[in-house]
Parts: sequence; C-alpha cells; structure tokens
Amino acid sequence: MLKVKKIAIDTEPENTVFLSKHCTSYRAEEFRALKKIEIHSQDQTVKNNILATLLIADDPSLVAPDELALGEQAFRRLALPEGSIVSIAQAQPPTSLDAVRRKITGEVMTADEIDAIIEDIANYRYSPMEIAAYLIASASFTTTEEVLATTKAMAKTGTQLSWESPIIVDKHCIGGVPGNRTSMIVTPIVAAHGLQMPKTSSRSITSPSGTADTMEVLANVSLSIDQMRNIVQKESACLVWGGRVNLSPADDVLITVERPLAIDTREQMVASILSKKLAAGSTHIVLDIPVGPTAKVRTQNDAVRLRKLMEYVSSEIGLVINTVFTDGSQPVGRGIGPVLEARDVMAVLRNMPDAPADLKARSLLLAGHVLDFDPALRGGAGRARAQELLDSGEALAAMERIIDAQGRTNETICPGNLTSEVVAPRNGQVTAMNCFRMARIARLAGAPMDKGAGLDLFKKVGDRVAKGEPLYRIHSCFSSDFQFAKAMAFEDAGISIDAIEVQESIST
Amino acid sequence: MLKVKKIAIDTEPENTVFLSKHCTSYRAEEFRALKKIEIHSQDQTVKNNILATLLIADDPSLVAPDELALGEQAFRRLALPEGSIVSIAQAQPPTSLDAVRRKITGEVMTADEIDAIIEDIANYRYSPMEIAAYLIASASFTTTEEVLATTKAMAKTGTQLSWESPIIVDKHCIGGVPGNRTSMIVTPIVAAHGLQMPKTSSRSITSPSGTADTMEVLANVSLSIDQMRNIVQKESACLVWGGRVNLSPADDVLITVERPLAIDTREQMVASILSKKLAAGSTHIVLDIPVGPTAKVRTQNDAVRLRKLMEYVSSEIGLVINTVFTDGSQPVGRGIGPVLEARDVMAVLRNMPDAPADLKARSLLLAGHVLDFDPALRGGAGRARAQELLDSGEALAAMERIIDAQGRTNETICPGNLTSEVVAPRNGQVTAMNCFRMARIARLAGAPMDKGAGLDLFKKVGDRVAKGEPLYRIHSCFSSDFQFAKAMAFEDAGISIDAIEVQESIST
Repeated sequence: MLKVKKIAIDTEPENTVFLSKHCTSYRAEEFRALKKIEIHSQDQTVKNNILATLLIADDPSLVAPDELALGEQAFRRLALPEGSIVSIAQAQPPTSLDAVRRKITGEVMTADEIDAIIEDIANYRYSPMEIAAYLIASASFTTTEEVLATTKAMAKTGTQLSWESPIIVDKHCIGGVPGNRTSMIVTPIVAAHGLQMPKTSSRSITSPSGTADTMEVLANVSLSIDQMRNIVQKESACLVWGGRVNLSPADDVLITVERPLAIDTREQMVASILSKKLAAGSTHIVLDIPVGPTAKVRTQNDAVRLRKLMEYVSSEIGLVINTVFTDGSQPVGRGIGPVLEARDVMAVLRNMPDAPADLKARSLLLAGHVLDFDPALRGGAGRARAQELLDSGEALAAMERIIDAQGRTNETICPGNLTSEVVAPRNGQVTAMNCFRMARIARLAGAPMDKGAGLDLFKKVGDRVAKGEPLYRIHSCFSSDFQFAKAMAFEDAGISIDAIEVQESIST
Repeated sequence: MLKVKKIAIDTEPENTVFLSKHCTSYRAEEFRALKKIEIHSQDQTVKNNILATLLIADDPSLVAPDELALGEQAFRRLALPEGSIVSIAQAQPPTSLDAVRRKITGEVMTADEIDAIIEDIANYRYSPMEIAAYLIASASFTTTEEVLATTKAMAKTGTQLSWESPIIVDKHCIGGVPGNRTSMIVTPIVAAHGLQMPKTSSRSITSPSGTADTMEVLANVSLSIDQMRNIVQKESACLVWGGRVNLSPADDVLITVERPLAIDTREQMVASILSKKLAAGSTHIVLDIPVGPTAKVRTQNDAVRLRKLMEYVSSEIGLVINTVFTDGSQPVGRGIGPVLEARDVMAVLRNMPDAPADLKARSLLLAGHVLDFDPALRGGAGRARAQELLDSGEALAAMERIIDAQGRTNETICPGNLTSEVVAPRNGQVTAMNCFRMARIARLAGAPMDKGAGLDLFKKVGDRVAKGEPLYRIHSCFSSDFQFAKAMAFEDAGISIDAIEVQESIST
C-alpha cells in the first residue's frame, strides 16, 4: 500500500513512477529499474489502473518509503488525487505477445491476434523492445491478409469520423520530397469546387516540415472534432493536424520505434496510411508516390509494388484509390521549411508570376485527379476544372475562408534572419539534387521547430550556374543551429554540378 | 555547459540522467524523454564520455536549470566529481545498426559487422529496442558462420582467462530441469582426480536456483580473478559466480532483452555458452542436454540439432566437446531451491544412504565423461574412476577444501519455516512431472532470492501414491510469497497421477 505523490518529471509519452529503495510495503529489489509495473487503486470503484516504467530512488525528498511518486504523465493518466492509496505489481507481459513470439518463429497471425496486438500497443501495454519485436518479426515477412487485418485493427483503436456526404475525398503523399506542399493548394481547389475534403495532416517526424507545420504558419491547426466538423460543413474543407483528432493511436506509438530503428516497410506504410483514411471517413483518395533516387520510394519497381498493395487493401476496406507516380528526383517549389513553404503555397494560390511552376503543375495534376472523383464532372475534366478554379481566384478565396475559419495567425512569421548562401563551386549545370541530404541540412538549420528556418532554393535540376553563383540560402533563427547547418552544407551541399556537355558548350 | 550533480536514483544496469525543463544551456524540448544522450566532459584530457537515458524534470530541488543530475550508475560510470562541467548531445545511433537493418531485410552479416554490433552492445550503446531488433532479425535466420562469428565476438568483449595446464575441463548443462545440481558433485570429483576445472556458474535468471545460488549456501562465490587463480592452483578447481569475472558482458546485456521477450534460439544459446567457455580458457567440455516434454529442449530432434551446432562451433574455435543427452522429464534430486539443493548435493558427496539416487547417478555419468578427457586414463575408465573418488570420500574432501578456500558460509541457512504439503488427490501412480510448472511454484515461494525457499519432493515419476499422501512440501520465508506459491500449487501442482493399470492392480 503506497500513497500517491506527484513529481514534476516529464516522460511524454510514457508513464514513469518512482519507488523508494527503502519502501515499507514492497521489497524494492524485487522490482527491476526501468521495467513496467501495474498501479492499482485501492478504491474498488475506480478503474484507473495504469502501467508505468519504474525507477528506484534513495532520496526521501523525492519519494518517501511509504510513497509512490508519479511523473506528470502517470499522474494525469491515473487521475487520482495525491495521497490516494495504491498497490503495485510487476506488469505481466500482454498475452498478445504470444502471437508475436509465434510470428518470430515464422507463423502467420490471425486477424484476432492482430486486433489484440494493435489494441495493446495503442494502450501503451507494449514496451519499446516488445514493439520492436513485433515490427521486426513483421518486417521479415507479412502476408497481404496480415496487412489488411492490421489496417482494420489500427483504424478501430482511435477516433472514427463519419460524414453525411457520400463522397469524402482525400489526397495523400507518402513523403520523402522536401517542399512538396501540394495538399495546401489541392484542398482549397477542391473546396472551391464543392467536394468535401476534411484534410488531416501530420507534423514532421523526420522531414523539415509536415503539412500541419506549414499550415500552422497561416492558421491554427489544432482543432477539435466538433470545430473541424463545423468548418467542413461551411467551407467543404479544412487543413488540420491529425494528431489532435487521434485517428490512429497505435500508429503514433509504433512510430516511436520505427523512427529510431529506421524501419519503413511497405506493409507498415500501407497499414499506417490507409487505417488513418478509413478512420477519417474518407471514401476516395488520390495517393501521390514520388519516385526518385534520394526519395522514400527509389525505383519504379518499388513504386509499383507499393501501389499494388495499396490498391488491394483499399478495395478490401471499401476505399476508392487513384495512385499517381510523380517526380521525386528533387525538392518541389523553392522553400524548404514551414515559412518558406507557406510563401510558395500562397504565391501559387495568388497566381503570382514568380510562383514555383513545379509546385503549381503538380498541385493541378493532383487536384485534377481528386476532382475526377466527382460523378457530375465529365471523365478527365478534373484537370481543366482545377486550372479554372486556381486562375479565377476561387481557390485563393476558399483558402482565405479556411484560414479564417480555423483561426488566422495574427503575427506574420518571417524567415530566420541568420542567413548564408551556398554557392556553385564551378561553372556548369545542376544535374542532381539529394532530397535526403537537403532535408537534413534544413532540419539542422532548425526546421520545423523554428518556423522560419530552412532553405530557399534559387536553382533546380537543369539550370546553368556560374562559379560563385548562389544555389540556395540557409535561414536559421539560432546561432548554434546556423553553424551546424552551414558546416553540413559545406561538407556536401546536396547539389551536383557537372560541366556542360561538350557539344552544347561548343554551340553556345 | 551543465554542472554535474549526483542524485540517489538507481536504474541498474542502465545510466539515467535528469535535465531541467528550464535548462539554460539547452532547449529541453529538443530532447526526447527516455531517449539516449551522450555526455561529454569539458576537460579534454578526460575520456569518460557515457551514454544515458534522459528524463526531463521541472523541480529545481531535483535538478537546477544549469545542472545535469546523474543517477547512481551514470555518476559512477562518468567518474567525474560533482560540479564538473559537461556538455550533452542527442546520442547518435551506433553505426553498427546499419548492419542490423540489412539483416532485417534478409542479408547475412560479416564477421566484422558482428564484431562491431557485439562490442556496441557490450558497451551499452544499444537501446533495448535496438537489441530486440538485432535478436529478432537473427531469430528469423542465422547462418552457422554468423553463429561462429558471434561466439568469437562475444568471447572478445570481456575478461579472457588463460591457464598453464594444457587441459582445462568444464561441464555445462543447458538448463530447464529443476534441482539438476550435478556441477557441485562433478567439480570436486574432477578436482580429487587432479584435472583443472575452474568452474564459473551463473545465478538463476528464470529458474528457482542457479549453481552459483546453491553454492552460495555453502561458500562465498563472488571471487576476483586472482582469488580464483590461487584456488585453482591449490585445489585444481573452484565453483564461483561467473558474473563477477565478467566473461561475456555482451551476453549479460542481451539477456536483459531475451528474457522478457522469451526468445531462446538455438543459435543464441550456442554463442552464449561457447563464448563464455572460450573466454574462460576451457579446452575440453562435457555438455549436458536434458531432453523432456517440459524441459528447455523438448524433442530428440531439437537436441540433435543443438548438438550439431555446438559441435561445429566448438571445433572451429578449438574446443573439444562431448555432448550427453540426459532425461529431462522430471526434476533431479529432491530439493528445488538453493538450501534444499545444497542439502542433496552434500548428501551425495557424503555417501549418505538416503542421498537422491538420480542426482548421484547423473553426476557420476557426467564426471566420468569429464575424466575421460584425461589422456592418462584408459578410454572409458572415467566412470569407474569417478565412482572410486566418490565412494572413498576423496570427492567430499576436495569439496570441503574448495569451500574453505572460497570462504565457508558461517551461518547455517535453514529451509523456509512457512511450510505446506501438497498431497495426492487420488490413489495411483506418478506418471509425469512438469518441470516448468514446478520451477514457477518454487520461484513464487521465494527461490532463489530467499535461499531457504523452494520445494522438497517426496515422490518421483513411477512412485505409487495413496490419496492424501504428501507429494512435496513448499517452503517459504515470507507470508505473501507463501500464499502465492500455495495458490499456484492448488491450481495445478505440476504432478500427474493416474490410476494404476488394471492388470497390475488385479495382481496386487
């Protein structure tokens, strides 16, 4: 029996508790540090039992021998007042781990087993090592039936939205190409046309910006489900952060292990994306798969295999999907980082003459495919309709209404004022850009945490450059970030410049 | 720049540090709670950089904005005085993880890659999820060449003993059968003969007792390498705890993940056992593989596959190995738990008439195989020589000398005085015993933490029992353990009693 105490220790997203080495109710040596324990309220009417990671302390000011000290997350989730009496026990490993162990030995999991695993993961019952075991066992082989069952299981664990309109469209990009902010142009075009597009986006995980990060430069993106519903009712669309809506809590947990281990399997990607679309109530989806040597999908063969699996699972769960392969060989637009990308997006919507042509063309292509889902439009007429809505300013007006409805950002955020230009080391032609490298430089510069940090590109593949001519400008808000980004760009700027071919140089 | 502070928090075996949410030198939000950071001394002459798990605290009494508070393990390993100035950085994942990622996709690892992985693991550079990734990827397939390279790599990371004698014998049991304490009888027999046997044993991990736990009832087992050397020099043998000698630090880390995930592959078992024998300087080994439906190795087929792999790796690293399959269908001896097992061992060495016959027979068999390694003995004469050394009391005298040399335990530890007898539910014959179940009951009773806790068996397979007759006695030292063990034994005692066959019951 221990008394609950709150301590100001933050271990988001995990629960952490402290037990005294001289605990009066339990022998501390029976518990292993950094292992999970179960905490049970003594009040039988209370059901708030939680799991938490245990630390052993020998400091009575931190935790007395008759206390259990709870970090902020554990205290909030246990939801009992300080001084409440609780008991603890070593956490039993979740029974669904038996299926993971069988998976490790090569067996196929049933849909029921996958349901139990995903539910346990979403409820923080798996430790990171247990999640890793599940992911790696699945990475060695996963059947299409397992992918399907995983998708359904993940969609079931969180919020499930439903809408009145029979057609709810969405557009998703699998990522890997910096600056590719087409969602912020496609969504207002579709809204201006009148199809419903309740767009939820993620914040960046490993990239210099996610759509939610860039949209946040212009408007509030952290909306409740009710607020989101009202806006979609009035404006046909929204551009909000999906994390607040909690569409796939299991995916949010899985990603905490996938990211540090850099596991990114096709099967897990399909389950992650489609479970969120299913939970969001989407019916028709355009999926953008950029293909390029430094993008997430690197070969046409990989792209086709991903498309096939997306199409199979989509059809089984009743989603209409249209997959579009795009050029993933270089960044899209000029800006990389929230503020610089938002600038590009607004330039396209405002039909400004210097708006990035590649961002505009790609947005119109994708918007056209989304509009083609409208049964009222003649087949293939979507692209022209998208162009019309952009040229007329109707898409811009829709964007302004969405921004106002979500809550316009009051202050104008500027690009970071620590700047340095990366210049061409020789005369020649830009022959390649390394998306992965340039994303890392932009992140080192401070993106997306500092909205104004990132890269501003002056040249793209095919452009001729003279020695000393600027290729891009680094923007930072903090000196240490600025130094790191400059050092990395100096080592390898991520842009290949080759001498112009002989024949051509003779002709000039 | 942060000032080092020590706090009384115990997170053995991991390093843990606390950073203030209001840190003046770093933005706390750039660091993720429960992730690893690197700590660097500002003193360039100091090389004590360590990795530690980070927690964020909002309590100035725990950690001030200009401090980094180190838990006990981190403070000890950093080995800098309080107030020293350090810098921190997010830990870079070890580069050897690239090979683990390739392994996940199905590639075979090179010996150099395995060396780097094992070295990083031994130096705490892998997080539990990264270790799980390595283990699960290896569990799906591992080539014999990979097992060989892993064995060599694990032997290199810790202490490596060498001895003057050209023959250094050892005897190892892969485990899974409670009460199987043959090492404590084989070792003094071999010592009495004069072969050198510097026996290092483990403490229990999942069983009710390891050889080191049982030997500790009689003598000190935590000896330094020098002490061990002196004893072997004088007495030809010792029986010490291998953990103190640090023979395979990578294995000690791996086991912290293997155990909770219950991964126990043949390949990992071979690398773990043989790396320790190689590091211990053994040249000739008898390996005991008990086979039984509730033991670790459950079928003859599995036993043969394990033997083949043991033999292959042994021959490649220059170890002579003799594998013996033994009966793993029921516990060996009468006692399960340190004190009760030590009683059985001494009864055999003292040639007492009530000494457990199965423990004696098995010890003589294994000792005979060990003695057969002696070139001076006629081939196959080992068994008779072992019997002679036991019968004559020479083995007992050797054991008493080893106990005295290591440091005899002063107090006599008794079996736990909370006792309860588990009785036969019907007339019949004992037809099976569940090693796994009975081990769990003994552990719940308190073994091996409470030396006197465990089970004392009165019946073995084949014995006839009358309804109500005692099958075994539970011993506990603490009331809560006692209740748990009794409840589990009540649910299923782990002993099958079937009616005696009709024909036989007629004839009686």
